[in-house]
Amino acid sequence: MSGFGAATEVRRVGEGRFEAVLDGGYAIAGALNGGYLMAVLARAAVAASPHEHPVSTAATFLRVAAAGPAEVIVEPRKEGRTTATSLVTLVQDGRPTVDALITTGTLDADHEPAWSGAQPPGMPPLERCAPFEPVPETRDFAERLDLRFDPALMGWTDGRPSGRPELRAWLRLSDGHPPDPYSLALAVDALPPVTLNLGRNGWAPTVELTWHMRAVPAPGWLAVHGTGRLLTGGWFDEDVEVWDSTGRLVAQSRQLARAPRTPE
Amino acid sequence: MSGFGAATEVRRVGEGRFEAVLDGGYAIAGALNGGYLMAVLARAAVAASPHEHPVSTAATFLRVAAAGPAEVIVEPRKEGRTTATSLVTLVQDGRPTVDALITTGTLDADHEPAWSGAQPPGMPPLERCAPFEPVPETRDFAERLDLRFDPALMGWTDGRPSGRPELRAWLRLSDGHPPDPYSLALAVDALPPVTLNLGRNGWAPTVELTWHMRAVPAPGWLAVHGTGRLLTGGWFDEDVEVWDSTGRLVAQSRQLARAPRTPE
Repeated sequence: MSGFGAATEVRRVGEGRFEAVLDGGYAIAGALNGGYLMAVLARAAVAASPHEHPVSTAATFLRVAAAGPAEVIVEPRKEGRTTATSLVTLVQDGRPTVDALITTGTLDADHEPAWSGAQPPGMPPLERCAPFEPVPETRDFAERLDLRFDPALMGWTDGRPSGRPELRAWLRLSDGHPPDPYSLALAVDALPPVTLNLGRNGWAPTVELTWHMRAVPAPGWLAVHGTGRLLTGGWFDEDVEVWDSTGRLVAQSRQLARAPRTPE
Repeated sequence: MSGFGAATEVRRVGEGRFEAVLDGGYAIAGALNGGYLMAVLARAAVAASPHEHPVSTAATFLRVAAAGPAEVIVEPRKEGRTTATSLVTLVQDGRPTVDALITTGTLDADHEPAWSGAQPPGMPPLERCAPFEPVPETRDFAERLDLRFDPALMGWTDGRPSGRPELRAWLRLSDGHPPDPYSLALAVDALPPVTLNLGRNGWAPTVELTWHMRAVPAPGWLAVHGTGRLLTGGWFDEDVEVWDSTGRLVAQSRQLARAPRTPE
């Protein structure tokens, strides 16, 4: 195992206790990406559960996590017939860094939706999408995630933000790791902040992110679509939908984040 | 204090420990409403915090809560300058019933949105909306919440579901309690399940509900708009937006719930 699989590995060291070695390649300017951290937490939750999938994850980001050793504590809260819920905490330097309530279950890979009103985002074909030039702080992350952005929503890279908080991209892991529950955790927090298209540059730390795994993803590229509803009082929301190569909605998330204070 | 204020009251009995007496008037068929329970948890979180508002609440519903005494445990996870986060647990009969990660902060009542792309739902005027005849199981709840539904989305009450998971209504508390953070907690889980418009009748237990308070609500009626994206494998999502009488988005939520198994 290498790449994303190795980077998210957890090793059981006791009842509900796991060790991980966090990979600095998933950091941006020294702060590990929230989606990467949720993937690590989900692996521990599933390892401690009779079920296969992290169906619902509600994560609160308390402190910045850095590369290196960390502990994951899985505290069972309820185990039922179809689901189990745990409080899963990433601990670094003796302090809780991320708290997540994770409900595991087992989704049927072949299940046809009973109703779907959602449409895949109107993505241009892959060949019309492109990565964007990483800055030094994002280079490692950009090497691990192959993101090809819809150029229509990338005016902000040239100082021409669209004025609407929206971004979309094709996504796959550069190391060939196929779409699975853990890469979905990464995908829901992989886009740059949608506030870039409102002319707000700078760090936008996630406070809370809840994501739901809705289906087992098919192999191939994922389409990732981010939108926001409201930027007010220094807070903004960002919804991300993730679609697999068969056009199914496989994950949905919303995060509440602090906005960069002023347009730069 | 009476009505909703009294029903959500918490009494401090120790460091991070509160007692509540849950009001059966907020139950439907014996199970207390999730929004009501989140209001009780939010009151304990704010009482234990230096901040005024439950900005973000991620609640997982582990067991059915019933009328009568309950304990609320508030465990601080992080206190920062602008926010504080706690794990807040409703305990009944010695078991965790609801777990919630709640981040408190203080929102500025006069803040103008920096950007809002959201539109209030296209609600018909109040006089064209109507309550619907409660069944015996919902009568107490319907007495406490004055809900006036958009008749265009109420075909399911006559066996003519619209085929789209959507409902909207005007909402106020019957006892005159004005819109505040706690009535917003109630509002995000006050609509009947949107799956009724897919012809799915029966109980739809919420597994996870995350809601964010986005602004301090103005006095007057709230407009509550519920929509769903996907019903698959026995799970559905429901987004609720709550708008105040000045047309501001004051709360937004998403829940993941179990769907009634078969059309009835």
